[in-house]
Order: sequence, then structure tokens, then C-alpha cells
Amino acid sequence: MEVTRQNFKEVLPEVCNAVQEADFISIDGEFTGISDGPSVSALTNGLDTPEERYTKLRKHSMNFLLFQFGICTFRYDQAQSTYITRAFNFYIFPKPFSRTSPDIKFICQSSSIDFLASQGFDFNKVFRSGIPYLTREEESQLREQYEERRSQMNGAGPVTYTPPSGTGVCSVPEDQRDFIRTVEQKVDALLNSSDQTLDLEPCTGFQRKLIYQTLNSKFPKLHVETLETEKKERFIQISKVDEEERRRREQQKQQREQEELNDAVGFSRVIRAISKSGKLVVGHNMLLDVMHTIHQFCAPLPEELDDFKEVAMSVFPRLLDTKLMASTQPFKEVISNTSLAELHKQLREKPFKSPTTECPEGLRSYDTSTEQLHEAGYDAFITGLCFISMANHLGSFLTPPKSHISARSKLLEPFYNKLFLMRVIDIPYLNMSGPDLQPKRDHVLYVTFPKEWKTSDLYQLFSAFGNIQVSWIDDTSAFVSLSQTEQVQIAMNTSRYAESYRIQTYAEYLQARQKNTCS
Amino acid sequence: MEVTRQNFKEVLPEVCNAVQEADFISIDGEFTGISDGPSVSALTNGLDTPEERYTKLRKHSMNFLLFQFGICTFRYDQAQSTYITRAFNFYIFPKPFSRTSPDIKFICQSSSIDFLASQGFDFNKVFRSGIPYLTREEESQLREQYEERRSQMNGAGPVTYTPPSGTGVCSVPEDQRDFIRTVEQKVDALLNSSDQTLDLEPCTGFQRKLIYQTLNSKFPKLHVETLETEKKERFIQISKVDEEERRRREQQKQQREQEELNDAVGFSRVIRAISKSGKLVVGHNMLLDVMHTIHQFCAPLPEELDDFKEVAMSVFPRLLDTKLMASTQPFKEVISNTSLAELHKQLREKPFKSPTTECPEGLRSYDTSTEQLHEAGYDAFITGLCFISMANHLGSFLTPPKSHISARSKLLEPFYNKLFLMRVIDIPYLNMSGPDLQPKRDHVLYVTFPKEWKTSDLYQLFSAFGNIQVSWIDDTSAFVSLSQTEQVQIAMNTSRYAESYRIQTYAEYLQARQKNTCS
Ligand SMILES: Nc1nc2c(ncn2[C@@H]2O[C@H](COP(=O)(O)OP(=O)(O)O)[C@@H](O)[C@H]2O)c(=O)[nH]1
Ligand SMILES: Nc1nc2c(ncn2[C@@H]2O[C@H](COP(=O)(O)OP(=O)(O)O)[C@@H](O)[C@H]2O)c(=O)[nH]1
Repeated sequence: MEVTRQNFKEVLPEVCNAVQEADFISIDGEFTGISDGPSVSALTNGLDTPEERYTKLRKHSMNFLLFQFGICTFRYDQAQSTYITRAFNFYIFPKPFSRTSPDIKFICQSSSIDFLASQGFDFNKVFRSGIPYLTREEESQLREQYEERRSQMNGAGPVTYTPPSGTGVCSVPEDQRDFIRTVEQKVDALLNSSDQTLDLEPCTGFQRKLIYQTLNSKFPKLHVETLETEKKERFIQISKVDEEERRRREQQKQQREQEELNDAVGFSRVIRAISKSGKLVVGHNMLLDVMHTIHQFCAPLPEELDDFKEVAMSVFPRLLDTKLMASTQPFKEVISNTSLAELHKQLREKPFKSPTTECPEGLRSYDTSTEQLHEAGYDAFITGLCFISMANHLGSFLTPPKSHISARSKLLEPFYNKLFLMRVIDIPYLNMSGPDLQPKRDHVLYVTFPKEWKTSDLYQLFSAFGNIQVSWIDDTSAFVSLSQTEQVQIAMNTSRYAESYRIQTYAEYLQARQKNTCS
Repeated sequence: MEVTRQNFKEVLPEVCNAVQEADFISIDGEFTGISDGPSVSALTNGLDTPEERYTKLRKHSMNFLLFQFGICTFRYDQAQSTYITRAFNFYIFPKPFSRTSPDIKFICQSSSIDFLASQGFDFNKVFRSGIPYLTREEESQLREQYEERRSQMNGAGPVTYTPPSGTGVCSVPEDQRDFIRTVEQKVDALLNSSDQTLDLEPCTGFQRKLIYQTLNSKFPKLHVETLETEKKERFIQISKVDEEERRRREQQKQQREQEELNDAVGFSRVIRAISKSGKLVVGHNMLLDVMHTIHQFCAPLPEELDDFKEVAMSVFPRLLDTKLMASTQPFKEVISNTSLAELHKQLREKPFKSPTTECPEGLRSYDTSTEQLHEAGYDAFITGLCFISMANHLGSFLTPPKSHISARSKLLEPFYNKLFLMRVIDIPYLNMSGPDLQPKRDHVLYVTFPKEWKTSDLYQLFSAFGNIQVSWIDDTSAFVSLSQTEQVQIAMNTSRYAESYRIQTYAEYLQARQKNTCS
């Protein structure tokens, strides 16, 4: 089901309900880009430490917008031996809530946008109908701003306009004086007439600001309000009202504001509901999804990886990454390509079994025969199917074999809270609920060289050592993994007098790096 | 006329023709945002020097994308006393041209996007069908890359793959060895069979890279090519060909590449045509349009304002800004609101006259009765109309009065090459073809204070001096313009022992600033 700003309020209870009843929930996000560095490959090095990788992703990926969020809930129906699924595809956009709310800037990467465009992605739906969101902190700040303004209103005297960012109370610029004078005259006329309200001509936002300023200090008893014409031009309406009516209107305004505030929290409510449910959350290659979700809807990402793990676990106490699962025993042997589409394809064939699923009546679900890959709701659905197939496959090793393995089964524990680490050679996953693996890197050299060098130059340099593995860091440095640790000392010795390049052991490299970050 | 990637090639000759025949050309751009600072107002200070303003715009506005470009050509038809207009509305998007071409990142500001979305702007058209572009330098770089690759191809031996950004020749990762081995076996079978071609299964880009690598070095005589299935999945086709056929295919490929390269230059051709024509280019509040146009389609913006003026004048030798014109004598007195829509409205009333325009048969033009404001092509059209009305109005002061003033008239010279400076109090325009005005700022104080201060605190502080004007710089500083220069010394004296705030003259401020940028 597609969820936009238009039907969000109506659908939200359904979503919360589905989450409440689910055995597990699968998620997927679409972003406006992956890396703001010169290239995506610069973002990942095969020998990144988990800390390094986290730092890079945090620095170079969080300025993109997560603008489509797919959620699919799965509830097992024992009687029918089938999963009841509910898929929701949310369009997300940080529509500025008011003039004083933050004006979010986000980066788009043209390759990502072009890719989604070629898949028929509907950007208009995002930008015109995306659901807004706020982090907890942004929400509190907004609530405070409202409270403050209200307490000023209730106090006596004119409202002092609190500028959002130092623009301050303007003195009326020379070229606006005539304009403001005309408005004052009209208001004087209103007060001396039997008319109750006066609609001013539409004017610029700056002029409206000047009008509010002027009227609030000169005519504090009038009710002043900005309205919109049918053509969406904003104009000011001024009303003569008695004290009671004025209070009624203020109250109405407060109610409206409260509702607006709730609307502004928007999609973050869904994440809060999932978090509160404590249900298992499944994703495919989900590290970036988790980071973006927290960054955008919960709280700024902490600087340190350990703190991130803590925050993430508090938001999603149980995570499972199908890409990591598929890359792990006993699936690793059977599954050659772990990209989502391929994984799904392979899991429909022997020795695996496709789960049967069903969608509550009257609800459109996805049909796996007409692929809608890269729509977040569909990807979430598929991810859930992959998870079920793999989980059930684990049951086939039991004696007697079991054809259904529940999302709470002990058999799944080895896969919990381990997020796939893309393209790290020797660390398969980020361990979210404990310290990470620390592979030995004694056979790794850190090599620096002139920027003209190509991989072939490195192969040549180390040709005496047999098979090597090159992991580029940047134009002038790379890690070279030798096949045997004993070769390291020989390589170091022969490089001693080299002028064009320089070799350090991995340990030396780490040390030097630490010094640099400390100083 | 709407111009996208689909009809660009076909329409380009028409555009060039219209430009060639035009008396003047009006332009307008739509951007994904205005300022990447905390707020737009932080970008502008009422007492910015032209250099400061340029530096701010260059730093905080150029990372947005100019994604719709409107051009309207106007040719006067003496016989009919009417202007023949041609309006083109170009959708622009930096679709990555190939895997090795730059992957542009751009910023979106949600308020700007939301505004355009609310006006019905079609983002899908931009992202799916936007016309690409290259600066001169990007074009040369691409051409060089192609030449280089080609000369390698023509030389003997395998092509050494030149990685775009240090990813280098990969050794085949452990988990891909089986895959590559299978491909090699299939190729061996092809060579031993009577088949001419072999289509491999679709696979990932990374796998294709490995296949190219392997085949180029092991089977240099085969022709290897990437094709797409109907489902847009990329797969590799391998063909057995004789030397002649191989050469023919290479040649075809070269031709295709040349054409692709020309396509990649895309919209930049239009700007080059306008530039080459040397025609008068008219815009409304056009400083950002000019900066973005040069930045995106011509060359990176220089650091110094003077260098920018030189570059801009070499691209557009004659510019005219209708907002500046409308804010200048004799229009200033009559025109109260110089925003484009309002200006257009006012210029349709006395003492002005709407020009008659006509659009060549068969071409849809804009109809000013159904407003399409904020579509670049329409805004360009309206801007041209405003220019004509104002130009003709100048003719009414002649004796005898003239009802038509040509775009080349001497009467317009005072308005050439002066771009409106938004919200600078005492410098109306940026003088593109010479030094800027240097207004006296003897009556201006630079005041620093605690961040709790509001405008009212400043008013209070200077209450003895009558009318003042406050221009906020940031949370803790502002310029305060006094009404009389003599007051400056008094203010300085009384502030000598103040602890919470500090006052400097504008001259002192400039000096301190200069020291800071030099050191
Ligand atoms: N340089 C490099 N690129 C890789 C490697 N593995 C995958 N890729 C690239 O990363 C992209 C995504 O790969 P995949 O693992 O299938 O990811 P998924 O679709 O997100 O599950 C592919 O298009 C490959 O081009 C690798 O080991 N090295
Ligand atoms: N703070 C401030 N804002 C202004 C001032 N003049 C205009 N603006 C704002 O700038 C926007 C554009 O103004 P306008 O001059 O009409 O620009 P145009 O529509 O691009 O011609 C308006 O929406 C106003 O909110 C000013 O003097 N001070």
C-alpha cells in the first residue's frame, strides 16, 4: 500500500496494528545517493576497520535523503501454515513545516537519481506528497518554540517577534514606508467603520512581516491572520473582535498548532512504533538503512561506533541482515550471488522452498511475478520472503526436520544483530551487540607511491611473492595483502632503500594513524 | 516549447536559428535551492560589499542544480510592428554519461523543492528526461580519455584497463573465481564450436569488469561487448570475428562514442550559441542565473569578483537586468513592487503599454492570461515583455515620442551590464563592465554583542541617535547605520567603557577583516 502525506493519518493506525501483530518486520530504504566522495569506491576499502567504515559512512552518506521507506509485516498463521503480510511503501519528504522550522538541505547523487528514474521511480510523489518527519529533539524544540510564543501571547502587551535566525525586528525600509502607511490608514478606516474584517491585498512575505510588526504594536487588540487566496497567494486578514471572540480564536489557533505539530512528527511515529514493539527487524544489506533511519527519524548519529551500536540497539533491539545470513554457513555454499534479486531467485529453487503468503482481503499486495524491484515496499516484502526461506531451510537440518521455523527460534540466534559489511575482506559483519571481530592483518602492507602508479605496478613490485591482493586507499596508497606472513619481513627489507615508494606494516600504519587523530 | 533529452537533438537547430535571428534573448533558471547556509538571510547582509556578496553566493549557492532553463528569443517585425517570440523550456539533468564520467552531486533545499512542487513542477521530467551538459574542460577531459583508450586499442596487446579513481585491475576475489572459471570454459567451448557468438547470463557490473579483464588478456582476438536485455539487464556478448570485421566493429564503436560525446555536451551547446551570437541577454534579478549558467555550462567560477566579471562578459557581452531597470529612474517612481509577477502586472497598465507579440505558426507559445509563473520558459517570456514595455516607455520621453525602442537603442545603454544586487542598502547593482560603486559608509558602525541581544536592544542602545537601521551579520554582530555621520564619534566615545558590547567604525571593521583574510 502506498502511503503519502494525503493518507498517512488515516493509515497510521493500521500500520501500528500490523506492527503489533507481526512476528517480524522487514524494512528497506531508498536514498538520493550513497557517497558524496569522489566515488563510491573511495568510501570503502577492503581493509577498513569497523570504526573506519562507520566513520566514512557517517561522514559521506548521511547528507543524502532517505525518501522512500518500505515496511512489510509478517504474521504466521498456524492454522493455514501461511504468512499474512502487509506491505507499506512510504514516501518521505522534509516539507518545511513553517517558516521557523529547519529548512533541510540534502544531497542528490546523479547516478542514484538516474538509476531510480530509469526504474520509473515517481519523484513527483516524493516531493509533492512525501510525509514529513522530525527527530525527538527537533520535536521538542518546536514544541518549546510554540509554548514560548503562546506564553508571550497570553501576557500583556505587544508580541515581540522572535526571529528564527537573527533577522530581527526590521525597521521599515525606506521603500516600504508608503506601503505600510497605506495599511495603517486602511486599519484606521476599519476601526472607524462598521465592517468587522478587512482583507489586505496579497503581498510579499517581507511585507507581511512588516505588517504584523506594525499592527501588533499599534493595534494589539485586533486579530491578524494570514490566509491564502484560491491562487495560493497569501494575504492578511484583520478582524475587529471582542475579548471573548479573540480568546476563542486564539484557542482554535492553538489546537490547530498542536495538530500541525503532530503532523510534523509524521513518519517518525512509524519508526517509534516499530521500536516500541521490540519486534525482529529484517533487512538486506541493512547497515546504511539502519544508520539513515536513526539519523533521520531518531537522533543525530554519534561519533563513535560503540555509541552508535548502543543507540541502534535501543531503537531496534533485534536486527537480522539477510545478506549476511546468505553469506554465512550453511547458505554460503549454495548461494553464489547475494544481491537481493538474485538471492530471491535462488531461494525459489531447490533445496529451498518459497513460503506461502497471503494478504488480508481488500489489500493490494505485491505479486512476485511482476517485479517492482527498487520500490522500497516491494524490496522489503522480498527481503522478508528470503528470510523465511532461509529460516525454514535451517529447519531441514533438524531431526525430525521442521518445515516452519518461527522468527523467534533459537536456530536464528547466530544471525541476530550482525550487519553485513560490504567489501571488507576479512570481517564479514558489524557485530551490533558486542565487540567486533579483530582479524589478524600481519600479512598486510601499507604502501605509498607516486600517483602515476597503477595496480600493475604493484603486481610487478611484489611479483616475487606470488599471489597478492591490492586494496586501494587513494591515488597514492594501497594495502597489499601477501599470501604468507613470513614474506612481510622480506618485503620490508628490500624496500628499505627504495625512493619512489614506501612500505609500512599494517601495525605501523595503525600506530601512525592513531597518532594523527590524537594530535 | 518543452525541450528534453528526447527531442533536444531535433530542436537544437531551431534554437540556434532563433538565437541567430533574435534582437534580444531573455533567460531564466530554476534551481534546487538558493542557500546552503542556515538560512537565506544569512547569505545576504544589507551592507555586503560586492566582493563579499559574490564570495557568499559562490560558496553557498553553486552546489544547487540549475535544472530548468528558460530561453525566449524576441525578433522585431518592423512591418507588423510586433515581436516574433520563440520560447523554449529546457529540462536539465547531469545524467552520468558513462561509468568514467563525473557523478555530479547537487544539493536540494527542501523549501525550494516544496515551493516548486506546490506549483506543479514536474520533477520526473527533470530526472528522467533532463538534458545533460558539460563544461569545456569536462568535454576536453572526456575527449582525451576516449583518444587515449582508442590509441591503446589500436596498439598491440591487451588493453590495460585505466580505472577512473584508483580501483585498479582487480585480482579476482575468492568468491568470484568459480564464476570466472565458468566463463572461461564457455569461451573455450565457443572457440571450439561453429557458433559465432556467445551471450553470457546477465551479471553484476563488478562481474562484467572481471570478465573484460580476463578475456582481454586471455583472448585478445575476441570482440567483447556489453548489451542490454529488454528488461534492461546488462549482459556480455562475445563474438568470434575476423580481423576485418573486428576493425569494422571498432570503427562503429568509435562513431557511436563520438556521437555519445556530442550528446553529453548537450545543453552547453545552447549556451555556447547564445554566447557566440553576442546578443543582448535579458533576465530578471539575474545575478544567480548568470553565476549558475557559467558555473554549470562553461567553467568553474573564479575566486575573485573581478575575474568573474571578465569571464561573464566573455560569455555574455551584453546583459540587462529588468529588476535593476525597474528600480532605476524613470521607472523607480512608478513601480512599487519589482518582483517579476508584480512588475509584469504593473507594466500592463498606464503609463506603460503591453507589446504585441506573435509566435510563429504551429508553435505553442505562452498565454499571459493563464499564468505559468515559475516555469523557466514562461518567466523568460514575461521578462522579455517587461523589458520591451520599459524600453518603449523610454521612447515616450523623446521629441517626437517613439513607440518602439529597439534592443540596440542608445537609450538602453545606462542599463547594460548592471545586475541587481538583492538587499544591499546602498549599492543598487553589480557593475559587470567596470569597477563597482563605493558608497560612503562613514555613518555605519560595526557592533558586537552577547547572543541574547535582539534588535530592540540595539534600538535602545542607540536611542539617543534617532532613526537607525540595523543589518544583522550573525547572532552576535550587526551593522548599525546612524542617520548622521557626526553621531559616529559620540557613539564611539560613549561605548569606550562598555563591557557587554563593542563598537567599531566601518573603516576599522574593513581593516580588521582584511588583516584576517591576509594572515
Ligand atoms: N570494486 C568492487 N565492487 C563490488 C564488489 N562486490 C560488489 N561490488 C559492486 O557493488 C554493487 C552491489 O553489489 P551486491 O553485493 O550485489 O549488492 P546488493 O545488490 O546491494 O546486494 C555491484 O553492482 C558491484 O558493482 C567488490 O568486491 N569490489
Ligand atoms: N529580509 C528582507 N527580505 C526581503 C527584502 N526584500 C525582499 N525580501 C524577500 O525576498 C523575496 C523576494 O523578493 P523580491 O524582491 O520581490 O524578488 P523577486 O520575486 O525575485 O523579484 C520576498 O519573498 C521577500 O520575502 C528585504 O529588504 N529584507
